[in-house]
This record gives sequence, C-alpha cells and structure tokens, in this order.
Amino acid sequence: MPETSQDKERIIALMHGADKPGIVARVSGWIYARGGNILHADQHHDNENGIFFQRVEWQPAGDVQEEIKLFRHLAEDELEMQTEISTSAKKPKVAIMVSQFEHCFFDLIMRVRMGELNCEITCVISNHEKLRAMSEMFGLKFYFVPLSKENKPQAEAEQMRIIKENGADLIVMARYMQILSPDFLKNCGAPVINIHHSFLPAFAGAKPYHQAYRRGVKIIGATAHYATADLDEGPIIAQDVTTISHRNTVDDLVRKGRELERTVLANAVRWHLQKRVLAYKNKTVVFD
Amino acid sequence: MPETSQDKERIIALMHGADKPGIVARVSGWIYARGGNILHADQHHDNENGIFFQRVEWQPAGDVQEEIKLFRHLAEDELEMQTEISTSAKKPKVAIMVSQFEHCFFDLIMRVRMGELNCEITCVISNHEKLRAMSEMFGLKFYFVPLSKENKPQAEAEQMRIIKENGADLIVMARYMQILSPDFLKNCGAPVINIHHSFLPAFAGAKPYHQAYRRGVKIIGATAHYATADLDEGPIIAQDVTTISHRNTVDDLVRKGRELERTVLANAVRWHLQKRVLAYKNKTVVFD
Amino acid sequence: MPETSQDKERIIALMHGADKPGIVARVSGWIYARGGNILHADQHHDNENGIFFQRVEWQPAGDVQEEIKLFRHLAEDELEMQTEISTSAKKPKVAIMVSQFEHCFFDLIMRVRMGELNCEITCVISNHEKLRAMSEMFGLKFYFVPLSKENKPQAEAEQMRIIKENGADLIVMARYMQILSPDFLKNCGAPVINIHHSFLPAFAGAKPYHQAYRRGVKIIGATAHYATADLDEGPIIAQDVTTISHRNTVDDLVRKGRELERTVLANAVRWHLQKRVLAYKNKTVVFD
Amino acid sequence: MPETSQDKERIIALMHGADKPGIVARVSGWIYARGGNILHADQHHDNENGIFFQRVEWQPAGDVQEEIKLFRHLAEDELEMQTEISTSAKKPKVAIMVSQFEHCFFDLIMRVRMGELNCEITCVISNHEKLRAMSEMFGLKFYFVPLSKENKPQAEAEQMRIIKENGADLIVMARYMQILSPDFLKNCGAPVINIHHSFLPAFAGAKPYHQAYRRGVKIIGATAHYATADLDEGPIIAQDVTTISHRNTVDDLVRKGRELERTVLANAVRWHLQKRVLAYKNKTVVFD
Repeated sequence: MPETSQDKERIIALMHGADKPGIVARVSGWIYARGGNILHADQHHDNENGIFFQRVEWQPAGDVQEEIKLFRHLAEDELEMQTEISTSAKKPKVAIMVSQFEHCFFDLIMRVRMGELNCEITCVISNHEKLRAMSEMFGLKFYFVPLSKENKPQAEAEQMRIIKENGADLIVMARYMQILSPDFLKNCGAPVINIHHSFLPAFAGAKPYHQAYRRGVKIIGATAHYATADLDEGPIIAQDVTTISHRNTVDDLVRKGRELERTVLANAVRWHLQKRVLAYKNKTVVFD
Repeated sequence: MPETSQDKERIIALMHGADKPGIVARVSGWIYARGGNILHADQHHDNENGIFFQRVEWQPAGDVQEEIKLFRHLAEDELEMQTEISTSAKKPKVAIMVSQFEHCFFDLIMRVRMGELNCEITCVISNHEKLRAMSEMFGLKFYFVPLSKENKPQAEAEQMRIIKENGADLIVMARYMQILSPDFLKNCGAPVINIHHSFLPAFAGAKPYHQAYRRGVKIIGATAHYATADLDEGPIIAQDVTTISHRNTVDDLVRKGRELERTVLANAVRWHLQKRVLAYKNKTVVFD
Repeated sequence: MPETSQDKERIIALMHGADKPGIVARVSGWIYARGGNILHADQHHDNENGIFFQRVEWQPAGDVQEEIKLFRHLAEDELEMQTEISTSAKKPKVAIMVSQFEHCFFDLIMRVRMGELNCEITCVISNHEKLRAMSEMFGLKFYFVPLSKENKPQAEAEQMRIIKENGADLIVMARYMQILSPDFLKNCGAPVINIHHSFLPAFAGAKPYHQAYRRGVKIIGATAHYATADLDEGPIIAQDVTTISHRNTVDDLVRKGRELERTVLANAVRWHLQKRVLAYKNKTVVFD
Repeated sequence: MPETSQDKERIIALMHGADKPGIVARVSGWIYARGGNILHADQHHDNENGIFFQRVEWQPAGDVQEEIKLFRHLAEDELEMQTEISTSAKKPKVAIMVSQFEHCFFDLIMRVRMGELNCEITCVISNHEKLRAMSEMFGLKFYFVPLSKENKPQAEAEQMRIIKENGADLIVMARYMQILSPDFLKNCGAPVINIHHSFLPAFAGAKPYHQAYRRGVKIIGATAHYATADLDEGPIIAQDVTTISHRNTVDDLVRKGRELERTVLANAVRWHLQKRVLAYKNKTVVFD
C-alpha cells in the first residue's frame, strides 16, 4: 500500500451473493484498472450454502460518487451481489434506546467521546426519566416516551418519529428492557442491535442470574445480536463469557454480567459501524 | 504447617448440612485438641439455602481408623452433617465407559500414566470393539458389551456385574454415547461423571455442531456433570468454552469441541478424585 | 448464617503471620464464644514460607469498637499475627492520580456511581488540565499540579498535601504517567495501586505496543499491582490478557490494551476496597 | 464453490513480498483464466513494512505439476514474491525430538492417530531411553542419541543423519530440553518448532514455575515458535494462557503449564502442516 493517504476518502463495500468463480479477480481487477488503491479486502465462502461474501475498502483515483455509482452497477448487475456501500466521509448516526440500567449506556457514551466508536449519538430514548440528567450533562438530546401495555403502538410511533427527526443509521438497545414489535423493526428505518445475557445451559423466564446461581453454572455469558421479530434469536454479532464459582453470589453474577454486556455490546456496535458485519440467513460474517 | 510429613496418611472429610454458628470452631478445635495437623480447610456458606459446606484434610496424631470413627460421630451425630470420609492411603478405582470416540479415553489414560489423575483404571466397558486394541496395549481390561434397543436391561446388568467384579469408586462416561437408565444410576454403586458439549444458545436434537454452525454462534463449550436420571441435567462440575468465527468450518467446531471435552472431563475427574466436589440440590461446590 | 442482619455493622479482619496449629480454631472459637456471627472466613497456608493468612468477616453481638480492641489483642498479642481491621460502617476514601488518558479514570468514576466500587473519591490530582471539566461535571475536586524534572520534589509535596487535606485510604494511579518517588510512596499515608500493560515476552523501553506488534505477539495483557519503590515490580493484585492476530493494527492493540487496563484496574481496586487483598513478600493473597 | 470435488488434488501457495497494487487481481485472475477453482484465499498487508502476504488454495483444471511450474513463474518472476508451494497429495513427514517429559509427545501421537494432525511421524529422537517403550508400542522408530557437554557436535551430526535418513519436512521439539546449535538449525533441512512456558512478567533462569509462584503471578502461559539461533526468540506461532491464584501450588502451576504446552504446540504444528504460517522479520502471519 505504498501511496496510501490517510486523508483521502475511502469507499467500503459489503457484498454477498451466490458463489461463482472469478468474483475476487473481477472486483479487484476492476478497482485496480480504475487506479484505485485497495486498503483492505476480506472474503468468505460459505461452502454449505454456496454463498460468497466480500468486504473491500479502497481509495478511488477519481470522484467518489461516480466510483460508487459504477461499482454498484458492477456488483449488483454484473455479479448479482447484494451490496451495501458507505464512505469514510460520513459519520454514522446512532439512536440509543435505554431503560434504567446505565452500564451499557454510559459505556457507549464514553467510547464515543474517546473516539473508539466513530459515530454521532443523535438521540437517547427511554421509558424512564432516570438517565435524563446524565444524557444532558453530556449534551445529548433525551426523550422520555412512557410505555404501558395500553399505549405501546402509540409509544412506538412516537419513538419512530423521534428517530426519524434526529436521524439514525443504527439503533442500539443499551439494556432497553422492552420488546420492540415486528412493526417497529420493519419500519424504524435502521438495523437494531440488542444485548442480552446468555447461559450454559440456557434459562427461560425471569431472574436468569438467580436461576443460573441455583443451577450452579460455572460460566455466564452475553450475546449481542441484530433484533428481529423473534426477539432474542436474531443473527449473533458478538459473544463473550466469564467463569464463576460457588464463591460468587447472585450479586457477583449480576456484576460480571454487566461487565460482559458492556464489552460485548461495544464490540458489536464498533464492528457494525466499521461495516464489518454481514448478516444473512440468521447468522453473521464478521470481518474482524 | 511446620511438622507436616508428606508420608503420613491423611484424612479428607467432606461435610454439608444446616448452617449454624460455631461449626468451623468445633471441627478445627476437635482436630487440634487430638493433636491433628490440618493441611487444608475450605468452607462455604450457601446463604440462600442456609447450608454449610466444609472440606478438611488433616494428619491425625494417632490411629487413622479410630480417628475416622470418632470424627464421624462428631460430624454426623453432634453437628448433624452429611459426611464423606476418605484417606490418602486408598487409591480410588475407576471404570471407564466409552463408545467409539477416543479423544477423552486416550486423554484419561495418559493423565493416569503421568500421575495427573491419582486412580486405578480397573476396567473399560464399550458397546464397540474399536478401542480394545488400544486398551490392551495399555494393559487395561476391556469388556465388549453389545447394546441394542432390545437388550438394554440385560446389557446394563452385565455392565454392572463387570463394574462390581472389578471395583469402581467412580464411573466415567468418556463419550459413552448411550443413555444410562435410572435403574443403572441407582444400582451401579458409584457416582457417574458425564461430558457433553454446550452452546450459547442451546440446541436440542441431533448434530449440534451443525446447528451451531448454521446459527453462527461465536462460542462453543463443554460441560462435565454427574449423571442423574435427567441425563444432561445433573450437577455441573466443570465447564469451559472457546471462541469460533465464520472462518471455522463444522470440522473445526468438532475439533475444538473435542479439545474442550478432554480438558473439562479431566478437570471434573481430577476434582472428584481429590474429594473436592460436593453435590447437593442439583448443583456443586468445587473446592478447587 | 440464619440470624444475619444486613444492617448490622460488620468487622473485617485481615491477618497473617507464622503458621502454627490451632489458629483457625482459636479465632473462630473466640468470635463464637462472644456471640459473634461469622459471615465469611477464608484462610490460606503458604507452606513454602510457613505463613498463615486469614480474612474473617463477622457481626459482633456487642459494641463494635470494644470487639475490635479485644480482637486486636487476641490476634496481635496472643497469636502474633499482623492485623488490619476495618468495619463496614466506614466508606473508604480514594484519591485518583491521572495524566491525560481518560479510559481508566472514566471507568472508575462510573463504577463508583453505579455502586460497584464502595468508596468516596475525595480528589483528582493531575499533571495536566485535560480532565478538569469532566471531573467537575461529576462533582469531583480537581487539582492541577504541574510537574517537570526540576520541580518533582515540590510537586510531590504538594500532591501529598492535597491527599492529606482531602483524606485517602487508597491512592489509585489511573494511568498516571509519572514515577512516584520512594519518598512519596513512603510518606503518602496510603497504599498506591498502579496499572500497566504486560506482554509475553516482556518489552523494555518506549512504545511497547509498537514493539509487541513488531514481535508478532499473539497475546497482550495488563497487570494491576501495589506501587513500590521498584515501580512496575510491586505485588501483583490482578492480571488479564486478550488475544491478538496479524490482522490487528497497533491501534487495535492499544484499544484492546485500554479495555484490559479498565477491567483489571477496577478488579484490583474493588478487591482492595473489600479488604480481600493481603500483600507480603512482594506477592498477594486475594480472597476473591 | 459449486463444482468442488473433495478428491481432487489441491495446490497451496504461500507468498510474500513487496506490496504493490494489483497482486490479488493478478493471482486470482491467473488461476481463474486457467480454469482453476479457488477454495480459500486469504491475504494480509503489513502496512508498516510495505509487505504483502497471501495464502491461496485451489484445484487446477489440468496437470498439477505443470500448474505449479507456471504458477511459480508468475509469483516469483513476474510478481517478485517469495513462494512456498505444496499439494494436498503429499503427507508431510515429521521428526520428533523429546527428552523425558511425555505430555507433548503423547499428545502429538494421539492427534496424528485421530487424524487431527495430517502428517507421518518418521522418527523419534531422544537424549533419554525413557520414551522408547511408548514409541515402539505405537510403531514409531525410536533413536537414542546420548548427549553431553563433550559430544554435542557429534550428537547433532548423528541427529541430522537420522533425520535425513528418515525424512522430515518439519522437526518438532516436544519438550526437548536441549539447545539446538545454530549449525544444527542451519543444516537440519527443515523448520523447527519449539514450545516453552511464558510468564507475565518474564523470568530468567532456572525453575520458572517456582519463580512465578514466588512472584505471585495470576496468569501463566505457553508460546510455540520457530527455533532460531536465538533460542526462545524465534517467530511466535501460537500462545495461550491460563489463570492461577494463591490457592494453586507449584505443582498446580506445572500441571496447568503442561496443559497449555500440549494445546499450544498442537495448534502451532497443525497450522504449520496446513501451510497457514508465514514467517518473516521474526514474526508470523497465521492464516487461521
């Protein structure tokens, strides 16, 4: 990569489609022939399903918008790939939904401030007032949208209005303890990332940490995934676990769970913002 | 521990029962007053259930059998604890049940040879002939007990006869791919340790590694537990996990799973042989 | 623990000294005889050095200060143990020293807010102005003490004055990028916890992440320890590591290192605040 | 990968050289134009050093030897890359050097038997007789080459003669507790993989587990690397760690270290045999 310039705008393309010979050669040859400088290229073949995945990041020689238009033609029309294209010039907008637990919320804010997550938090939406002061202290717009069994459709409509007004390329459920309706997920206009605890074995129902404690599990985990109509079953982006012992109380489990939730959610959001995640058939390819 | 002698016989007592004030003081005071030398003492309070657990290991000043008799009186009659007492002089006997997968089987044999597992393997029982040559090469008695839907009660009776003939303080299912009946577990005369894979989320049904691959999980695990009538649901002794990515094939998952099964089963067996595991209410305390 | 009351003041004693028979029996018997309720007791024998360690936490039946006075007599005069005694009623005071990196600093503040670290941050001392705004936003006293090669003795005197004025039972170097003099460590009046990165193999000199990258290490780590005159060589309290690959840039290493530094420092501080750490002979016993 | 045939011979090329635009396009285009079927392709840019790395695995349409000859011309002459080419038809030969510790040795034998390591062990060379019986039980040729300060050059000459006589594409030091001379490494005709323990911080000198115990480290590790003239400083292939606490004895550390050494060495050997490791400038790229 001799002539790389850090300042020059980069194009990132995520593609997937039916696998066929010569795709890598065609894509890299096309970029190279037009004078582009490929910074990163990663690909994956899902041999079981015959699907090909590619992430390619490059600096074009000429006009970025023109390059994108022509590349989309190549990838979608000629190679018949589903394609998602973004550029380094545009900082993604993120809406945060949160209830009362603050650990993931605060963690995200800090990582944005430290430059670890390259995005702009455009709004914070909560069904509680608890995190208003903290949000405003950090200069974030905070929206309280009360929620009850009765008003859920109206509340979700209001949430969507707020999201559209402020803009969001990604919605992060930072321990938002409500189920988003299939309607919301379909119409909110952005992918939604959720975080939840995970156990070996799994536990259904309430108070999972108490159940895990009673069952004497030796490992607890957290999973970040895209929210789908089937709430905790969307494509998994990131997971991590930690060990526990009989010496740990339920409070220890909850604290260790918080730690996992923070780092696992942050990893999932960072990979998504860097356009490293490709979801298909309820699973993901993460070009980490 | 100034006057410890490595050669002197040690007593190990595992106790649990209703928690009440003064148990630790009474137990340690009793041993001390009789001139005993406490080498290790570990205890645990389950505050939720009001249960107290203790493991204590000591060298008595006088006759070992006399000390055990009197200690049992103290622990069971006076303190009303359930008590399991063993001595360092007796090498535990282990029966191995195995099918065709050899990784856990090999691993156990080698750890016994290297002195990592302090036990004697008295017999190997299998529903396949595959591992006979290997067993005999290592000087182990191998018993082929064919198994079908029709002969299961007779086969289990034969297995129990072999186990009793050769002796077993512990039965290890080293990837024995059959379900032991509640009758077997009740009458085999020794605790049974089993190993199986674990996933986040869990998968029911056949070919779990294929399911995990399709689901795109990022972590796979293994769990060792005591076998109970509810096969994969007995008290958990040890668990471990490893990370996977989209780059891993199903074969990689299987290989990584084997690795986990080996080490997790070995840990569970070692802790059990060292009398570090106390099972109660479908969970364990592991004094590691 | 049947009659435990959450509200009742607890005494926590950390002791160590020459190992001799009967200490556990004597300590637990003494507390029990005076009507005390032992909540946790953990002990450790260092057989190599013949040292005994104990942490015991209990609710006395009578006056707390009287119990402490008498217990100190038992532990120090009769049992000849070095003893550190604290009570649950007193919230420890913490002084934070920090330079410009904000990740550990933020992390500590948030854990205190969330109740994960039970302490009061009495002052923030920095050789830069950068974190003043953030400190004051959270209502913390911020002191800028400029530091140069020339003024180090005066600067350290000023730092100690601030620490004494505000009070500190613990000083945390949250990425304070200066070496504290042996004089400071001797006279500052509180233990000092430091955090630094760790590598396999170790690297001396500047820019260790660049060196690790060039050496192609597959694992990086972080270590929290008590600061001693020999700066990065004090007793280790906590360590953790994470894996890296050739795909990771130096920036990735730095980011992953930050993550480790946050959690490792937080664990060390939490264990210290809970009086779980006993340092001796340049190592620690952590009753976790 | 529609027309992949598992049976068809595969070519694996590992290349590295000065990075320049268009290499990926040229390589994949060349294979595609000749009717080849690319099964895996992975590449890496070392931006700091301006080096490009590629691993590509494909099934050629025509004669394998002809394809290799022409591809070598492309890669070495046109693209100026250093190139290492192998085929799936040839099972690599491995020589094992071992002293008295048997854990890594036995682990490797078992993994070869189970098909986890695709290679043929052609000879076992030891400076002790201890592992002869075990080697011969598994049908392996065992050579005892006694070693002393006086006879080292002659002993190494004898070792090289044995290696050449039996053939070796790889030499594995499975806890061979001797230093191989620069002369041996230069003339033995195959890369050498070594395994050793690693600590945070590092310890020089004898009995490192005792030193680690005394220092109170909370983590121990193992590192597998290519042996170079600078013995423990060659390019790192694999590393792993495990946690320890004050409850662990020196014996526990040694046992946990053995566990790490087994798995880390096995991973390094497997990756090497699968042609996934590219060493340069004292570091490696591992296409795992």
